[in-house]
This record gives sequence, C-alpha cells and structure tokens, in this order.
Amino acid sequence: MPVTTTRPNPSAQPPFDLAGFLATRTETVNRALDRLLPPPTAKPTTIHRAMRYSLFARGKRMRPALCLAAAAACGGKEPDAMPLACAVECIHTYSLIHDDLPAMDNDDYRRGKLTNHKVFGEGVAVLAGDALLTQAFEIAAGCKSWPRYPHQQIILELARASGSLQLIAGQVADLEGEGKKLSAAELKYIHERKTSALLCCSVRLGGMSANCSPAQLKALTDFGYHVGLAFQVIDDILDVTQTSEKLGKTAGKDTKAQKATYPSIVGLERSRTIAAQLTGRAFKALKVFRGNAAALEALAEYLLKRDR
Amino acid sequence: MPVTTTRPNPSAQPPFDLAGFLATRTETVNRALDRLLPPPTAKPTTIHRAMRYSLFARGKRMRPALCLAAAAACGGKEPDAMPLACAVECIHTYSLIHDDLPAMDNDDYRRGKLTNHKVFGEGVAVLAGDALLTQAFEIAAGCKSWPRYPHQQIILELARASGSLQLIAGQVADLEGEGKKLSAAELKYIHERKTSALLCCSVRLGGMSANCSPAQLKALTDFGYHVGLAFQVIDDILDVTQTSEKLGKTAGKDTKAQKATYPSIVGLERSRTIAAQLTGRAFKALKVFRGNAAALEALAEYLLKRDR
Repeated sequence: MPVTTTRPNPSAQPPFDLAGFLATRTETVNRALDRLLPPPTAKPTTIHRAMRYSLFARGKRMRPALCLAAAAACGGKEPDAMPLACAVECIHTYSLIHDDLPAMDNDDYRRGKLTNHKVFGEGVAVLAGDALLTQAFEIAAGCKSWPRYPHQQIILELARASGSLQLIAGQVADLEGEGKKLSAAELKYIHERKTSALLCCSVRLGGMSANCSPAQLKALTDFGYHVGLAFQVIDDILDVTQTSEKLGKTAGKDTKAQKATYPSIVGLERSRTIAAQLTGRAFKALKVFRGNAAALEALAEYLLKRDR
Repeated sequence: MPVTTTRPNPSAQPPFDLAGFLATRTETVNRALDRLLPPPTAKPTTIHRAMRYSLFARGKRMRPALCLAAAAACGGKEPDAMPLACAVECIHTYSLIHDDLPAMDNDDYRRGKLTNHKVFGEGVAVLAGDALLTQAFEIAAGCKSWPRYPHQQIILELARASGSLQLIAGQVADLEGEGKKLSAAELKYIHERKTSALLCCSVRLGGMSANCSPAQLKALTDFGYHVGLAFQVIDDILDVTQTSEKLGKTAGKDTKAQKATYPSIVGLERSRTIAAQLTGRAFKALKVFRGNAAALEALAEYLLKRDR
C-alpha cells in the first residue's frame, strides 16, 4: 500500500544503503552486547542464559540503529555511541520480558521464539528483566562523556525515559486501559510513554555521545518523538493486518485483550495517514543536519513502511 | 540470649545513642525519599502509589543508616550521602517486592503489611519494582561526586552490587536452592550475594560520598561484607525463633520452602556463634577510623542483637 510522506527531496540525495547499514550495525551491536554482558557460563548460569536468550533473539535492533545513526548525524564516532546503543537495547528487552509475563500481556511468543518465562519460568523471567535493566546502567556508565554531557546527565536521561513517568507509565496505562474505551488523546498518552520515550532517548543519547550542539539535540528530540509515535501506530496496524508468523509475536493480541489502538479508534486508513504525517514531521526535524542525516531519514522511512 | 562479640573496647568509648541516631535518620531518609520520588498524585497514580506503598512501609532503613554512618566515619556531610542512602533503599525495596511475588517466594506479608502484589496485583507489583530500581539510578545520579569518585564510578558500584553477578545472582541461587541440601559454602555464596553485596555497597557509597581515602574504602568494604553475612545469619535465626507478628513478615517460611539456612545446616547455637564472629571481624575492620566510627559500630552490634 503506497504511503505518501513528506521526505524533503529524496531525488536530490544519494541513495542510502539502509539494508547494509542495518546488517552491519546489528552485527556490531550484537558483538558489543556479547562483550558487555557476563558470559553464559558465569554463575548462576540460569540468569545469564535467560538474559541472553531474550537479548539475542531475533530483535530488529531499531533503538541501537537509531542511536548510532543519530551519533553519525552529529559527526560522532561509533564506538563512543556503542555503550549507549547497547544500554537502550537492554532496557527495551527487559521491558518486553516483563510485558510478556502472565500477569501483564501473557504472551507465549516474542521475536519468533517462546517468551522468556515459557522457557525459564516466571521467577527467572522477572529476574532476567531486572538484570537487564540493571545491566543497562552499568553499560551506560561505561560510555564516553563530554563536559557538555557528563555521565550524570547520560544516566539521568536513561533513567527518566525508562522510569515511572515515561516507559513504565506507558506500560501501566496500557495495562489499565484494557477493556476500556479510550479517546485518541488517551491512546497518544500511552504511545508517547510506552514507545516514544525510549526511541527519543535512543537518538538523544546518540547525539550526546557525539557532543552534539543544543540545536542538534533539540532536532533529535523532535525527530525521536515523532518517529516513536509513528512506530507505535504502525505496530498497532501490523497487529491487525499481519500474521503471528510474520511478526514473530502473537498477532491480533490487541483486539483479543480489548486494547484500544489507532485502527480501533480512527480506522485503518486514517491510522496509515497519521503514521505518514508523523514521519513527515520527523523528516522535517532533520533539516538542521543539512543532508548529513541520511541514516536517520532512511530509518524513519523504513519504520513507516515495514511489514513486521 | 547473651552473645559475645569482640567489640574493641566498649567501656573506653562514650555511649552512642543508636536509638536517637536511627530515629532521626529514618525521619530524614523518609523526607528525602518523599522529595526524590514523584508525588502519589503523579499520573499514572497507580504506579506511584504502589512504589510508595512498599517504600514507606515499616522499613528499618538499615541500609540508608549504614550509608550515612559510613559517610560520618569518613568526615562527610550527610546531605552529600543522602541521595545514595535513598538509592540503596529503593534497590532494597524493589528486590523485596519482586522477591515476594507468587513466582518467587509467594509471600503475603512484608514490613507488617500486605505485600505489594496482594494490594495492587501482580502486574503493577512487577512494574513498581522496576520503577524503584530505575528510580534508584536517577537518584544516585543526583549525588555529589568527587574527582576520586566520579558519577561513573558511583553508578557502576550500584549497578554491580545489584546486578546478575551479585544481588540478582543471590536471588537466583536462593530460588534454585529450594528443596536441595546445600553445603555451608553454597549457603555462604547465596548470603554474600543476596544480602552482603548491597550492604557492602551501602557503606562503600557512604564513604565515596565523603571522598574517603583508599584505606577507608577498604575498611568499609571489609566491614560491610562481614556485617552483611552476619545480618543474613541472624535473619535465618529469626525466621525460626520469632513470630510473623514480630517480624512483620511470614516467619518459618524458610523451613516451609525447604530452604537451606544456617540453623538448618549447623544448628541454632553454632549459627549464633558464627554471627557473633562475623560481627567481631566487622568491628576489627573499623580500627582504621580510630574511634570515629561509633555509629557503624553501634549498628553492627544492633544488627547482631536484634530480635526482628
């Protein structure tokens, strides 16, 4: 289905090899995560196997890719951004493990595999999530810092985006919204927190690792916010239009859990338009980079047009 | 029951008003926690009420007290140590909430009140634990730092003590040890991680907030390690000798869960002797403070002789 976006002037830019970018970055991020986490043989092996089971499942590594792309747009060095890219992926994975628990979304499949608690049991799954959340801060503390962005600020950024007013607020509101008729504004409140907060944090941290200017940080914030919202609208759409096999997680679960989604509130076509508009606003935010944000632009377009 | 300890020379020191110290510090720590956490009216109110429900239950605030006492022993200012004292209490409380879940110890009472999941449901209890863990890092990042102990090191200290090789390793080993016959060495492995790691971290962070010397940090590490082990031996003893009412949590649960404990392995009397010996070694570590560690000394003695 064609979607019209307002990508600035695609023809004037050299084609960006997104597939190549994603393949190489997934590889380097996986290598870094493997190096930064305790080995699977570390005692107690159960917890380290459980952490790695979910972390090295078929994740799309979108948050690390966005973090690295943001660093590149600001002229940063990739190794400086890598610990932060890995930290956000640890946070993301922990939130999925806990979200899949029977007491929450009660899901059996994730990233094409059985969910963590299905393999290791609920107790270990709770602890594996806890361990990945804790690991994220240990890893983030190992990043390069600049006078403008000291470790203190990096840690605050990560903690706030993941905390009870952002990521966790979104999970709680999502849980509480089940079976209720939500307004579009209430749904947006959930999406901003459940998805946008960590995506926005990913690009902001990438920028910080590159000692970005305040104007660049503002642009990244704007970009991350809109890409994050678009991401979740597309997620809602895919939940009703794709198969579980394709998604690697249970499709149709929003409807089953009586969760409000963009398609259920405004319909499928209007949802697609909204996602395209949000992506258009994300593109607009990138103007300040004067053509040096090709990876970010390509990622935003990919996230809009993805089918899984 | 009288316990012999090797407290250096109690008669030569002025009596330390531990009750007064604990009362005032509990008060200031509670005030600081109240200030540092989002208010109970912050949206979504469920998560903030759930976080506060467990955090402001009848906690003994032993870890914050140890942190503040360590800072005092090193000549530090209490406000500099306060964020770290609050951060370790958030970590401790999160670990209790998750530990009490049906998938773990399945406990109905804690700190004299119904456990978090009994009041808010399992889903919210998991998230309240997650939120307190995340909050701990946000709070810790707000502490004073010194060139010798930059924020990076403070965060690493907290993350490592709470991570998959320490606190969480202890929880996993504890979970896996249920119903098994453990050796004293295996039990010590669990205690070192489940209890000693965070107690040790509490005093070390207190020292760091006071820009302590390397010799002082070594002494605090030694002190925290031994007090932590003694603390858990006493916990095991109280579990078999006290009532649930007195403890504010379910007594006899170790036996019920077929958990190995010091009394079950070496007997009650030998356990008491071991706790006293460990406390003696903790006292010995304090020598380097030349009489300026009265609060730490009194706390170690109190933890040994407590009956709840």
